Amino acid sequence: MTSDLSPSGVFDHPWLGGGFHDAQIAALWSPERQLAQMLAFEAAFSRAMGRAGLFDADLAAQAADMIPTVTFDMAQLRAGQESDGVVIPALVRGLKAALGPAGAAVHKGATSQDVIDTAMIMSLRDTLVMCRQRLVTLHASLLELDTRFGPVALMGRTRMQAATQITVGDRIAPWYMPLTDHIARIDAVMGRVAKIQLGGASGDRKALGDKADQIVADMARALDLDPAPRAWHAMRDGVAEAASVLSLITGTLGKMGQDICLMAQQGIGEITMSGGGGSSAMPHKQNPVLPELLVTLARFNAVQLSGMHQALIHEQERSGTAWTLEWMCLPGMAQATGRAVTAAQTIAQRIERIG
Amino acid sequence: MTSDLSPSGVFDHPWLGGGFHDAQIAALWSPERQLAQMLAFEAAFSRAMGRAGLFDADLAAQAADMIPTVTFDMAQLRAGQESDGVVIPALVRGLKAALGPAGAAVHKGATSQDVIDTAMIMSLRDTLVMCRQRLVTLHASLLELDTRFGPVALMGRTRMQAATQITVGDRIAPWYMPLTDHIARIDAVMGRVAKIQLGGASGDRKALGDKADQIVADMARALDLDPAPRAWHAMRDGVAEAASVLSLITGTLGKMGQDICLMAQQGIGEITMSGGGGSSAMPHKQNPVLPELLVTLARFNAVQLSGMHQALIHEQERSGTAWTLEWMCLPGMAQATGRAVTAAQTIAQRIERIG
Amino acid sequence: MTSDLSPSGVFDHPWLGGGFHDAQIAALWSPERQLAQMLAFEAAFSRAMGRAGLFDADLAAQAADMIPTVTFDMAQLRAGQESDGVVIPALVRGLKAALGPAGAAVHKGATSQDVIDTAMIMSLRDTLVMCRQRLVTLHASLLELDTRFGPVALMGRTRMQAATQITVGDRIAPWYMPLTDHIARIDAVMGRVAKIQLGGASGDRKALGDKADQIVADMARALDLDPAPRAWHAMRDGVAEAASVLSLITGTLGKMGQDICLMAQQGIGEITMSGGGGSSAMPHKQNPVLPELLVTLARFNAVQLSGMHQALIHEQERSGTAWTLEWMCLPGMAQATGRAVTAAQTIAQRIERIG
Amino acid sequence: MTSDLSPSGVFDHPWLGGGFHDAQIAALWSPERQLAQMLAFEAAFSRAMGRAGLFDADLAAQAADMIPTVTFDMAQLRAGQESDGVVIPALVRGLKAALGPAGAAVHKGATSQDVIDTAMIMSLRDTLVMCRQRLVTLHASLLELDTRFGPVALMGRTRMQAATQITVGDRIAPWYMPLTDHIARIDAVMGRVAKIQLGGASGDRKALGDKADQIVADMARALDLDPAPRAWHAMRDGVAEAASVLSLITGTLGKMGQDICLMAQQGIGEITMSGGGGSSAMPHKQNPVLPELLVTLARFNAVQLSGMHQALIHEQERSGTAWTLEWMCLPGMAQATGRAVTAAQTIAQRIERIG
Repeated sequence: MTSDLSPSGVFDHPWLGGGFHDAQIAALWSPERQLAQMLAFEAAFSRAMGRAGLFDADLAAQAADMIPTVTFDMAQLRAGQESDGVVIPALVRGLKAALGPAGAAVHKGATSQDVIDTAMIMSLRDTLVMCRQRLVTLHASLLELDTRFGPVALMGRTRMQAATQITVGDRIAPWYMPLTDHIARIDAVMGRVAKIQLGGASGDRKALGDKADQIVADMARALDLDPAPRAWHAMRDGVAEAASVLSLITGTLGKMGQDICLMAQQGIGEITMSGGGGSSAMPHKQNPVLPELLVTLARFNAVQLSGMHQALIHEQERSGTAWTLEWMCLPGMAQATGRAVTAAQTIAQRIERIG
Repeated sequence: MTSDLSPSGVFDHPWLGGGFHDAQIAALWSPERQLAQMLAFEAAFSRAMGRAGLFDADLAAQAADMIPTVTFDMAQLRAGQESDGVVIPALVRGLKAALGPAGAAVHKGATSQDVIDTAMIMSLRDTLVMCRQRLVTLHASLLELDTRFGPVALMGRTRMQAATQITVGDRIAPWYMPLTDHIARIDAVMGRVAKIQLGGASGDRKALGDKADQIVADMARALDLDPAPRAWHAMRDGVAEAASVLSLITGTLGKMGQDICLMAQQGIGEITMSGGGGSSAMPHKQNPVLPELLVTLARFNAVQLSGMHQALIHEQERSGTAWTLEWMCLPGMAQATGRAVTAAQTIAQRIERIG
Repeated sequence: MTSDLSPSGVFDHPWLGGGFHDAQIAALWSPERQLAQMLAFEAAFSRAMGRAGLFDADLAAQAADMIPTVTFDMAQLRAGQESDGVVIPALVRGLKAALGPAGAAVHKGATSQDVIDTAMIMSLRDTLVMCRQRLVTLHASLLELDTRFGPVALMGRTRMQAATQITVGDRIAPWYMPLTDHIARIDAVMGRVAKIQLGGASGDRKALGDKADQIVADMARALDLDPAPRAWHAMRDGVAEAASVLSLITGTLGKMGQDICLMAQQGIGEITMSGGGGSSAMPHKQNPVLPELLVTLARFNAVQLSGMHQALIHEQERSGTAWTLEWMCLPGMAQATGRAVTAAQTIAQRIERIG
Repeated sequence: MTSDLSPSGVFDHPWLGGGFHDAQIAALWSPERQLAQMLAFEAAFSRAMGRAGLFDADLAAQAADMIPTVTFDMAQLRAGQESDGVVIPALVRGLKAALGPAGAAVHKGATSQDVIDTAMIMSLRDTLVMCRQRLVTLHASLLELDTRFGPVALMGRTRMQAATQITVGDRIAPWYMPLTDHIARIDAVMGRVAKIQLGGASGDRKALGDKADQIVADMARALDLDPAPRAWHAMRDGVAEAASVLSLITGTLGKMGQDICLMAQQGIGEITMSGGGGSSAMPHKQNPVLPELLVTLARFNAVQLSGMHQALIHEQERSGTAWTLEWMCLPGMAQATGRAVTAAQTIAQRIERIG
């Protein structure tokens, strides 16, 4: 049974979410979306298996049509996760119960990890797409800052000490220049990670026989993913690389945040922003809340990234331990990254003066 | 505005929670509990300030009585967090609005971090207490396993290779022996971390004048915490040490989980458990779901711990970046630890044979 | 004064080095190589400045010729590092002292980070090249294993439990398939990171005036690096991405190592290798030393990677803290990666039977 | 064969060591010291076994006398590490070759991990003792700063913004107050970790029969360690806890370093120190080299700590992977901590003005 209490994680938290929540990215990783994507997998699988002649064609078409409409008893899914360590056996039982005869044309030949991974990859793909779009916008906004304030003189600071005079343009170039590389990284990793997962019991696609390639291609089209030459159940480098890209993005923005926090210090006073945060003890204070957030999100992702890379050690055909470690780390990284880009965008728009 | 979507974090997730959720620990870190504890702080503060003569005695008593009953518009708290980077200014505004004249005897002299940290410490204290109790039970259960199976012969394995014959008792001693040290660690860190936070604007208790010690002692009694000789806003070693203890606990249990996963392999077959997890592709399989979970939770905590120690670098009188990094990492560590102990307990009860 | 004691780090350790040392990679990161590369930078800088007319042409040519031959009092370099936090001021003093009049055409217009970063990037570039070559060889060796043993039946194992029968080819595909992606990653990151560092005091190339591009191009040619459109003193994403790639490589190999450790267990017996490790207590034992090493190196890199991403938060024009954190983490990652690839190669050659 | 190149790790590096090297701590972890401690173990073991009647009394006494004087061919030790994954088999072969008949009273009944762990614990014990002494001195020095500058007014800064006026005493209290807790932590962990390792082949002390307790007590006395009720080969919580304490220490000092870096900014100017670092480009600059170092060392330890906690997952009776991960992380943490305390001490002495 689920609790009536609100979630305590910062991204989902009723008030902390005000700082950490990114509605669009959160939606991509929401259980509702995950469930829809798992059902989209099962529907595409039934349909492809029917077309390939591995499922009865009529039953398969019927199953594919019905699957997206099936509703589930959440308590049963939860109980299934608890007992099986993965929700799919319970999900499949629910599908079979709802589909009647068409239930014979469901899931057989796939495995839990196929469904979970494909659903996860769809969220990751959409996260990368969304971050990419936002980075393009942010890049333009920061260039605009450069246009407005670039030539203004500023004291360059190295090792936290005044060095020689530079310009605002020099200070902010490291905020926007890496963004184009981040976009290139997103494009590159997309080609390596946005691939359907399909392997069956031990990942060898044996149950699909000589129709495997056809089924994979069919499903990939349906789900807007690339086909994969074989299941990548135990090859997690694409996922870990995507996590690395997320952390690179927040790292650049964390640098921007740290710079702004330092520039906003009284005594330095190199920046003015609207909309700083209030204090309960000192109403006059204007805290650099969003720049601070950028630093925190960058450090958070740098921490989580270690977990994603530990999860590369994925033993044998499927790892129950490394795989679930990804579940614990990746959604938070996606949300931290999404939130960082929007926070940086807001900051860019609130800057009234630099230098 | 909060979303209607379910939370995606594993601890709060509608079905993943079936594996990761620990209802008791989750309750301790729930927003509802946090809010209640923040209000308990404010009530205790008003009362102590009244007793000390720094607030009008009647208004303070009235405020203290009313505060715990005030309800809040969550959207306002969320907006406050968003704009101020901390919820307390909005909370205090809410209190003042609700309390009428007694609102004059609220919060003044304290600061946001006093409230947030004290509420967090109450959750941490209760987490440690709860884990301690569970560890005592787990220790007894594992000793019982030792009684039942201890003398049975088992092949010792070093560097994953058969070594010399040992006994089951030798294998499981490292599962329970460290638990008594963990209990000692909990007791020690409790004395260093279960302390009220009270410092005011810049943490120097200046607004409390020569009544500071009295107020701190009064509040500490009310909140069942120890007094602190001064505010520890920027001294986070107690919190990071507590996180270390949590990770030590999950580390020991992760070792137990790893051992059991290895013992449960076909071809090794050194353990039989009831209630293994099912597979969507292979109904006959019995996956060691809970032992795997122990490994994952241990690796997760080992990752998060790095974040908690990064957060030790807490600049000046209060760090907006390091402090909020704790918010992102600690509640998950608490839940991972609580869940690990209950999972280990369930495992201990499900073991039907070892050796 | 340096100590007469041997180094304690595993890569340089007199006997632990027998396991961890990779002579070729270690040479790339050796102080001797670093020094040579720093001098190569200074020589190329003097020459380019002379050609550009910013240094006296004759003195600059003379300096460029002499610089690589200058020897240094190591105690002075060490004292310089201690007092200045970077060795370059002492190095430049040493150069000027050695060069006589040509010393006037040395370093002026560059800054410490230009020299250190360029020298570091040259080592990183050569590490990536070397790892790339080795990965090509390893890929071929693993494909050869696939040719020899691929069709042999093997029990597939998921969640550490026997699943369905697969082939050896299925088990080892995740060992070699990601290698081609790793090679593509190396090629991509090479284009982003193998760039000369040149910025001068605050990184703005102001001292180079309108000759900046020419000088950068000239030096880049001399040092076999790409030019950089501006100094990347505070843009560390290329370096952190390279570290991510190193960790992805060791992650794949760590998965291979973990698989082999599991396959080598008595009771499983799915692999036979020559040259296993001996035991001081049990002479008959054959420990899977190199496969274990792959796991350890993968976990090590997953840990260090977090530090490299923390170092992305590089404040202002140059960070004394984030920069030096790279120094602490990156050379070890390079050596761990190099060693992992050679260890995997040795393993591939020692496998006598799988399945 | 070892290389003629200098070591590249920062602690052992010919010039970077000028910043990172701590001669006393480095000596404790040096191979020379490790070897001496391994021999001390073997000597104590032979003697205790002789006294217990498990070795021939005369041969054992003779062996114990001779062992500390044996010299080794380093290339053979290195080759042994390479082939066996641990140096002890080669070491024992060397001892037997050197001792003639007394070689019969060597090592038999112990195992590699007994020797390596005991030697490591002796270094860890001495590191903790040394850090404890230095923390006492540092505490006094910081209190002296408090005496000199404590009452001076300073602008309190929260979230990097000017808050309310405090005193220098308020700023520096978080630099010294946690040190007394760190000392208490050292004392507590010492009691849990400074224990002899003795278990034999699979850690069950079977070869020692009913003399096990006597032998352990005898050896513990000889090596100035506590006895352990059983071997802790696979119980690494003491070691990981010690690592946590090291990271807590560097965390506090990192906070001090970060504060000083911020105070030293032009425009803030709240501190004056002698002996700041020079710049190759700007001779007038005074970089806060040592305060920066404190921040870097703290972040480094926070990273490494994750590895030490990952190593808690120590499978079965001995883990070749987790154990060696400790070798890669712990010596660096010890040196980083030692260096941080001495750097903080130097800083305390160089502060000429605060506030």
